Amino acid sequence: MGQDEFQVISKYFQRSTEDSAVLLGIGDDAAVVEVAGPMVVTTDTMVSGVHFPSETSGDVVGYRVLAANLSDLAAMGAEPRWCTLALTMENAQDEWLAKFSNGFFDLAYEYGVSLIGGDLTRGPLVVTAQLFGVGKKDHLLTRSGGNVDDQIYVTGSLGDSVAGLSLINKGIADASDRHQVLKNRFLRPTPRVSEGIAMRGIANAAIDISDGLLADLGHICQASGCGAVIDVERLPLSEELRTLFSLEEAQNFAICGGEDYELCFTASPDDEPAIKKCLEPSGTKAYPIGQLVKQPGVVCHRSGKPFMPASTGYLHFT
Amino acid sequence: MGQDEFQVISKYFQRSTEDSAVLLGIGDDAAVVEVAGPMVVTTDTMVSGVHFPSETSGDVVGYRVLAANLSDLAAMGAEPRWCTLALTMENAQDEWLAKFSNGFFDLAYEYGVSLIGGDLTRGPLVVTAQLFGVGKKDHLLTRSGGNVDDQIYVTGSLGDSVAGLSLINKGIADASDRHQVLKNRFLRPTPRVSEGIAMRGIANAAIDISDGLLADLGHICQASGCGAVIDVERLPLSEELRTLFSLEEAQNFAICGGEDYELCFTASPDDEPAIKKCLEPSGTKAYPIGQLVKQPGVVCHRSGKPFMPASTGYLHFT
Repeated sequence: MGQDEFQVISKYFQRSTEDSAVLLGIGDDAAVVEVAGPMVVTTDTMVSGVHFPSETSGDVVGYRVLAANLSDLAAMGAEPRWCTLALTMENAQDEWLAKFSNGFFDLAYEYGVSLIGGDLTRGPLVVTAQLFGVGKKDHLLTRSGGNVDDQIYVTGSLGDSVAGLSLINKGIADASDRHQVLKNRFLRPTPRVSEGIAMRGIANAAIDISDGLLADLGHICQASGCGAVIDVERLPLSEELRTLFSLEEAQNFAICGGEDYELCFTASPDDEPAIKKCLEPSGTKAYPIGQLVKQPGVVCHRSGKPFMPASTGYLHFT
Repeated sequence: MGQDEFQVISKYFQRSTEDSAVLLGIGDDAAVVEVAGPMVVTTDTMVSGVHFPSETSGDVVGYRVLAANLSDLAAMGAEPRWCTLALTMENAQDEWLAKFSNGFFDLAYEYGVSLIGGDLTRGPLVVTAQLFGVGKKDHLLTRSGGNVDDQIYVTGSLGDSVAGLSLINKGIADASDRHQVLKNRFLRPTPRVSEGIAMRGIANAAIDISDGLLADLGHICQASGCGAVIDVERLPLSEELRTLFSLEEAQNFAICGGEDYELCFTASPDDEPAIKKCLEPSGTKAYPIGQLVKQPGVVCHRSGKPFMPASTGYLHFT
């Protein structure tokens, strides 16, 4: 190979930006940006063999690590702007790096994100991306803003990502559209950035669904000091999920499956028309799936009876 | 063990802050801070077995990863404020985590840094810290501000860290003061934060010495479009380094050894009194070691003759 870290950075990561707020990008001891408004910052790590199979193509890894961060900012109602990347890898393989940087920058350009710095180190494959956005003062979406009697909503459809992953893991090589749709929901999820920004000042609490609906809604409840009751039959399921899996499997995926990167949010029942209206430009629909209640904990109902799903969200170190 | 990521975060990392600019800290989808001035951001990764021996105590790892970042901000003349931490580890070992967080927060408190977020994942031990600071508009120190005929300075003393590491690696259990001083220069380096801030508006270019003087001064030269001539006999060597090693070894450590986390900076010869004066409150001295010149490249002289050191700075992927 013979290329050092500076060559790798200049070859794959040093791209020009049109963002005039970037006063100093890659190549100094630190980057410098001008931030107009509350700065919102999130970080996500993906580890080979833990968050993705070790043979995963570089473009999927590059795309997903940024998507996960974009989704966090979406859940805050913040506008994504700048990113840093800490990449640890054993060898500087040109093919992998070219794919990785393409996957990363494809998404970065789409969302107007400039890569302003990072660190490149030798070691087992671990990628940490850090994303900075700008929020609107007094209009940040948080987990703690939920009120008892709020309606609970989710965007898009749930369970597709984990269903897609199960197809990938089973090695099912079916290239039919339905298979591809589900697999792509895992490989190239769409963060709900414009949706989050549109809900500023309307939604009371929000979170992105990365660990699974039950776990993530549980975080809203805990932070908001309340509980939740959801109706499993109201969970939005894609046509693809419903066709390729049984209703039982599909609902379990929807309740417990992580990494859909949809938004779960709460709003006053009076704001249902406002929710509908603000999401119209994005073409994304949000579905009411239950209510926040006084009693702590998240309870699922199905056909009017309490329902216990097969497992809850993914926890590290357990 | 039985503790999940949320327990680990609340037990070891969720500490209160008195910084009123932190609008939202650990525990939501993202953190939110109010930034008054240019935001300066840097990130550093440390990998077990690469940047530190795998048996290294957690407190050393926690301290050093923050110290490396503080040093980067020092080289920008920025005031450190907030930090995020991406920690990947195989198991949540209480003893290691307790030490790691103590080492980290000891230094964080000393420099007024609040931990505002992060990510905790399972995998091989890799630590990425990201540090945010606030700079002064039009008074940022960069690598590119050097001018031909500038004096080149370094703070403190050079070569101690790599000398200390060599003592640690040789397993020399000598507990004498001199051995300890050198070992501590590797284990608990002091970032030159107040020194960097003091030099705002006086120094023309600056970098911290993490890869070794030759390599890092080379970055200033490249960014500033010039070269450098340094006099090896003017490099500041500590009494400990001079006593425990030969002059030849000591000078080689000083030229090529990384992770001293001293500052290397350039300033107009007319500003020598100003440099001396601005550093007085910190008690740190800076030593002129050479000049920036028109001819590209970094050239070492010793006893008036060109001198070629044994190796240059550490490069990943080579």
